[in-house]
Amino acid sequence: MLTDILRRGPLTRARLEAFSDGVFAIVVTLLVLELRVPHLHLGSSPQELAHELRAIVPKLLSWAVSFFVVVKFWVNHSYILSLARCASYACFWINALFLMGQAFIPFPTALLGEYPGNPLAVSFFGATLLVCCLLFVWLHHYVNAHLLRDADQYVPSRPLLLRSLVGPVCYALGAALAWVSIPLSLAVYLFTPLFFVVPLQPHRGHAVAEGIIEQEEMRYHAGLHHAH
Amino acid sequence: MLTDILRRGPLTRARLEAFSDGVFAIVVTLLVLELRVPHLHLGSSPQELAHELRAIVPKLLSWAVSFFVVVKFWVNHSYILSLARCASYACFWINALFLMGQAFIPFPTALLGEYPGNPLAVSFFGATLLVCCLLFVWLHHYVNAHLLRDADQYVPSRPLLLRSLVGPVCYALGAALAWVSIPLSLAVYLFTPLFFVVPLQPHRGHAVAEGIIEQEEMRYHAGLHHAH
Amino acid sequence: MLTDILRRGPLTRARLEAFSDGVFAIVVTLLVLELRVPHLHLGSSPQELAHELRAIVPKLLSWAVSFFVVVKFWVNHSYILSLARCASYACFWINALFLMGQAFIPFPTALLGEYPGNPLAVSFFGATLLVCCLLFVWLHHYVNAHLLRDADQYVPSRPLLLRSLVGPVCYALGAALAWVSIPLSLAVYLFTPLFFVVPLQPHRGHAVAEGIIEQEEMRYHAGLHHAH
Amino acid sequence: MLTDILRRGPLTRARLEAFSDGVFAIVVTLLVLELRVPHLHLGSSPQELAHELRAIVPKLLSWAVSFFVVVKFWVNHSYILSLARCASYACFWINALFLMGQAFIPFPTALLGEYPGNPLAVSFFGATLLVCCLLFVWLHHYVNAHLLRDADQYVPSRPLLLRSLVGPVCYALGAALAWVSIPLSLAVYLFTPLFFVVPLQPHRGHAVAEGIIEQEEMRYHAGLHHAH
Repeated sequence: MLTDILRRGPLTRARLEAFSDGVFAIVVTLLVLELRVPHLHLGSSPQELAHELRAIVPKLLSWAVSFFVVVKFWVNHSYILSLARCASYACFWINALFLMGQAFIPFPTALLGEYPGNPLAVSFFGATLLVCCLLFVWLHHYVNAHLLRDADQYVPSRPLLLRSLVGPVCYALGAALAWVSIPLSLAVYLFTPLFFVVPLQPHRGHAVAEGIIEQEEMRYHAGLHHAH
Repeated sequence: MLTDILRRGPLTRARLEAFSDGVFAIVVTLLVLELRVPHLHLGSSPQELAHELRAIVPKLLSWAVSFFVVVKFWVNHSYILSLARCASYACFWINALFLMGQAFIPFPTALLGEYPGNPLAVSFFGATLLVCCLLFVWLHHYVNAHLLRDADQYVPSRPLLLRSLVGPVCYALGAALAWVSIPLSLAVYLFTPLFFVVPLQPHRGHAVAEGIIEQEEMRYHAGLHHAH
Repeated sequence: MLTDILRRGPLTRARLEAFSDGVFAIVVTLLVLELRVPHLHLGSSPQELAHELRAIVPKLLSWAVSFFVVVKFWVNHSYILSLARCASYACFWINALFLMGQAFIPFPTALLGEYPGNPLAVSFFGATLLVCCLLFVWLHHYVNAHLLRDADQYVPSRPLLLRSLVGPVCYALGAALAWVSIPLSLAVYLFTPLFFVVPLQPHRGHAVAEGIIEQEEMRYHAGLHHAH
Repeated sequence: MLTDILRRGPLTRARLEAFSDGVFAIVVTLLVLELRVPHLHLGSSPQELAHELRAIVPKLLSWAVSFFVVVKFWVNHSYILSLARCASYACFWINALFLMGQAFIPFPTALLGEYPGNPLAVSFFGATLLVCCLLFVWLHHYVNAHLLRDADQYVPSRPLLLRSLVGPVCYALGAALAWVSIPLSLAVYLFTPLFFVVPLQPHRGHAVAEGIIEQEEMRYHAGLHHAH
């Protein structure tokens, strides 16, 4: 019965997207707050400042990795929601759990930047991204199963599951590797997002996209004629 | 006469929603700033870090509870505003007071995370949520009485009041219980939001929603035909 | 010639409003970060916490005043921009200066909360709001002179100037009074926003608003018929 | 093949703009967090506070410069995206790199505010803005080459490149000058944004803009007639 209530809708996607974009934008920008101005004994010494800036390099790198990861989630999130014809309360809440994961990212990022040589800090970072990926997979599956605008976009759950496990498996591997070799683990974290620069799409995705663009252009020109 | 001025309108809901979504998104994301990177004597020691992370668990829990609470308010807020045909200055200001409550939440959350064994900290958390609930009830009643898009959605104020007091009563109870048993009080805080995972809707809500979805789809298809 | 370039347009208001709403929302939410969790010697003592919370009361009050002031600016800002048919680069930049004032508000607010007994802190708060008001008056005049959607909404600049100086004069008075009597100065800060709970409107504002609502409703119903 | 995938689209600009506006708004507002409330020995002494506020002046100036710079980027960003008919994944990612530069700005700003007499701090500030400019030029060129809504707006890449190098060259010069004369370098930083108060437009830009405004107005009136 609860699932029944949660499927209630239809809710517009507008505020869901606005809220999500807000969270993504803030997470991405808050990350830089961890870069603190160093304390110099001689304020005008470029040597001392250069030395201190060099000490910040691990924080800079962990900032860059997290920025890249969050943008990757944002790109894929906007793709998934663009497939949905509307939202439901279940979608609101799965999305909220997913955003909770995103909002948490600054903490393990700061931890990794502060203690890049600590296997637990490195492993904790990977574990967080693993959970984020699983929450995203959940959201993806929910939209695919219940909210698709266009039935042609449906992907059977087995192949979808297989493809969407690449991320979680990579991060689990990275988190485990941290206890063996930290550089190897960081390399895994660095290369995993490259799989998701562009969202996983059904093979006919390209054709569908072109169909949409044609429609959009037709609507656009119709609008112009309307105005004339 | 002031009430007369305040009812002036009609104002579009667009900026009201954008401003509110911004505040919700920031509140939810700022909460994590309370999770500070611990200071380790031996930076590379996983044991020491594990020990410090365990000390952060109460902060993590209070963060999770507040995240859940704020999202719950956001879900209900978006439902209430979706019922309104437009906004008025009174609606702007009641909403602002409500958002003031939301923007305050990070402070009692941080207090609870830092002093989970302090009855005043526990009680203060509940009292804040009690005030937030009352402000939300005010907003709900105002929209119900003055701004409904569709007269069929009107709920007589007595039953509306009865149902909408569940939240305030629970939080008042939790705030009082803090002085008797802190775990009991926290349990009340934890379970109260579950009543509001989905907004309280009039019994005919389902049917109305389906009406809206049909309309939306009709409009969507009309748009397509238009373009052809 | 520069003025010529600055008048170039037309630019849509959409991103101007999104950017502004973002800044308003963040300012309003950042204000709470000044409320820091107090350090207790005995973490479980409600007496000690109560004592520390009492010490925070001036910060709470300055937070509340600033929250109210920023929302007031937001309400008036959304009114002014709703009068504009489009934006121009000059409008972008005047708006940016205005937002710069808004973004600065957390600093004097924190100063006032920390040193409520310091005349300079009290005066500085008023001086900041004075500058914010003047920037808003500039924006208002610019929109009134160059960007009105509806010529009927035009207000001759003399009466507009007279009415729009209420805010700056009040804050200048408050800033000056700080050096004589701090409570009097704070009272002025507290009561000034009450003049602006609802934007100053031309006398025929009400009628115009009703015209807009009728139009909106007509468009709404036309949309429905369209869909049928 | 990767470039092929990255060109996939069409994606709507809506979320790209919402995300970007969020980042811009947060960057611009976070900058003020560097202005910390000074510690006074005698809280009620205006002399001591005045002395401390004077010490904050360099931070205030670096805040103002960065605010101006970020708004300048926002104005130009909104212009460039308004030329695009849609987005693509490549556009998403170039934009993300550009936003990464924006999100980084608070750090060199804080550094400059803290150590205005340190040539490395001054030079680092310029180098950051140089990188931001180059990222913006990349985005501009990408939109110009692949996503223009209106082919008439196309600018051949040679003249576009020449004009768009003004910013990077100025900032490179400023960053180099820091090692010779800090005031000269700061002057360059201060005056460079003035070139970009209004976006660089093709010579026929004005006419095109007027065309758009006419279209918009026609559409607007068509909408009104529609409603009648």
